[in-house]
Amino acid sequence: MPAAAVDSQMGVARTVKALRARVDGWRSAGLTVGFVPTMGALHDGHLSLVRRANQYAQRTVASIFVNPAQFAPTEDFSAYPRQESADLEMLQKAGCHLAFVPTAEEMYPEGFQTSVSVGAVSQGLCGASRPHFFGGVATVVAKLLNQVRPDAAVFGEKDYQQLLVIRRMVKDLNMSVDIIGAPILREADGLAMSSRNAYLSAEGRAVAGRLNGVISAMAEKLAGGAAVDATVADGKSAIESAGFDRLDYLEVRSSDLLEPMGPGPVTKPSRVFVAAITGKTRLIDNWPVEMGA
Amino acid sequence: MPAAAVDSQMGVARTVKALRARVDGWRSAGLTVGFVPTMGALHDGHLSLVRRANQYAQRTVASIFVNPAQFAPTEDFSAYPRQESADLEMLQKAGCHLAFVPTAEEMYPEGFQTSVSVGAVSQGLCGASRPHFFGGVATVVAKLLNQVRPDAAVFGEKDYQQLLVIRRMVKDLNMSVDIIGAPILREADGLAMSSRNAYLSAEGRAVAGRLNGVISAMAEKLAGGAAVDATVADGKSAIESAGFDRLDYLEVRSSDLLEPMGPGPVTKPSRVFVAAITGKTRLIDNWPVEMGA
Repeated sequence: MPAAAVDSQMGVARTVKALRARVDGWRSAGLTVGFVPTMGALHDGHLSLVRRANQYAQRTVASIFVNPAQFAPTEDFSAYPRQESADLEMLQKAGCHLAFVPTAEEMYPEGFQTSVSVGAVSQGLCGASRPHFFGGVATVVAKLLNQVRPDAAVFGEKDYQQLLVIRRMVKDLNMSVDIIGAPILREADGLAMSSRNAYLSAEGRAVAGRLNGVISAMAEKLAGGAAVDATVADGKSAIESAGFDRLDYLEVRSSDLLEPMGPGPVTKPSRVFVAAITGKTRLIDNWPVEMGA
Repeated sequence: MPAAAVDSQMGVARTVKALRARVDGWRSAGLTVGFVPTMGALHDGHLSLVRRANQYAQRTVASIFVNPAQFAPTEDFSAYPRQESADLEMLQKAGCHLAFVPTAEEMYPEGFQTSVSVGAVSQGLCGASRPHFFGGVATVVAKLLNQVRPDAAVFGEKDYQQLLVIRRMVKDLNMSVDIIGAPILREADGLAMSSRNAYLSAEGRAVAGRLNGVISAMAEKLAGGAAVDATVADGKSAIESAGFDRLDYLEVRSSDLLEPMGPGPVTKPSRVFVAAITGKTRLIDNWPVEMGA
């Protein structure tokens, strides 16, 4: 079959062997490879990552794998939305060349017993309320990067802490891949796109849409020199007033190492990080403090 | 400089950048690459690994790095023998093409915070008395394999548990490298070659030389159908009689997963594993039970 025919439609690999056969073919042809790991339930945010990968490489692989190792027993692993055929169609339209859709058995065969963990940058924020999360993420991403062996991999800034964890892991373990962060895509009212938004009731959706306004206003105040502690206190009130049921965290941390800022004005490039719950849905978001802007 | 001249003498790389420049040059020339990680203080056992790597690949890299992360504070990190120029000369004579000799700062720059850990196969034996050991080993070997990117890496069976830990890690993390085990080289009296043999007093050396006789006799009895518990009890007496100051462990475990055998005869391919102390020196050794031999 001529190469053009092979590449005119997106392939689907369900095993590492099939994945590598395809990727090795590209390599032999001198093509560069980009990679976008996902848990499926795709939305425009994911597709923007695929398009970004296509800017960095000539072929793009996207994986769809709901990773059991990054969910705690109390979390929403079983309920996490799954819609494979819709996902595959969206990936193809976005210009993805190969979808890698492994089973849990392919990823974690019997006897599996290795884990990768990252230290300080995994602590706090989502690492505090989800203690197994980043270990599970680091391990599965290490596997995926070794399976795909891409030149570049794209991660969304919505999961900003995850992006830093992956950057740290790749650097510390001397993995040969460029890690590219991509900006958050937002709905018309500014709500960060997320697969978990599908859980929201109409009322919850209205509440959720107010989160980004709170943190962007905080970021603007902080950029103007406001003290972190007072700004966070005001932000907490605003989130309560917005109708959220519970605040997991609202913090200002440095953009490179996630060092806590405050109590006074921020002293280096920082972001406002938030996780808040409405109904049964936990939403996260973050916003950069544009210093000197 | 023509390639022949470059390869006629062994190179020395002290940074990952220099290492990769050399290895990438080989790759571009279509050459395969073997790798032997060491902590220096080389002896014929190490050199046999280099020669074995040369059977599997056209170019061989050996690393010399005394990895602080695999020593506990109470262990012999500072005292561990270091003899770089002698090591480099030995490597060159053994046919090594490139020595990678990184500093601790090159391996663990400020901010380093990632670790790789392997589960069940790291438990027991050396993992029991040296709880940080295999985590430190897995992390540094993951780094070295990603730095060198070899086709094959050779590990001695003297550190048999380490070999299994590395095999497991490579499989679990989908790393693209063949892990090759190489048989133990022994002195004339059967003492397994080890850098730590240099610590032995004349008296300790005589005691040490009796260890292999005890475990090989045990392996022979077990191969003949003797019960594990009785054989181990006899072995413990023999090690005490041989003059050792302390026994760390003496166990019979399966060769693939290190499952404990006994109390009756072994039920699958197994090895006798021992760690014993004479003076300040801890010696390890292992011997296969030749079933059906």
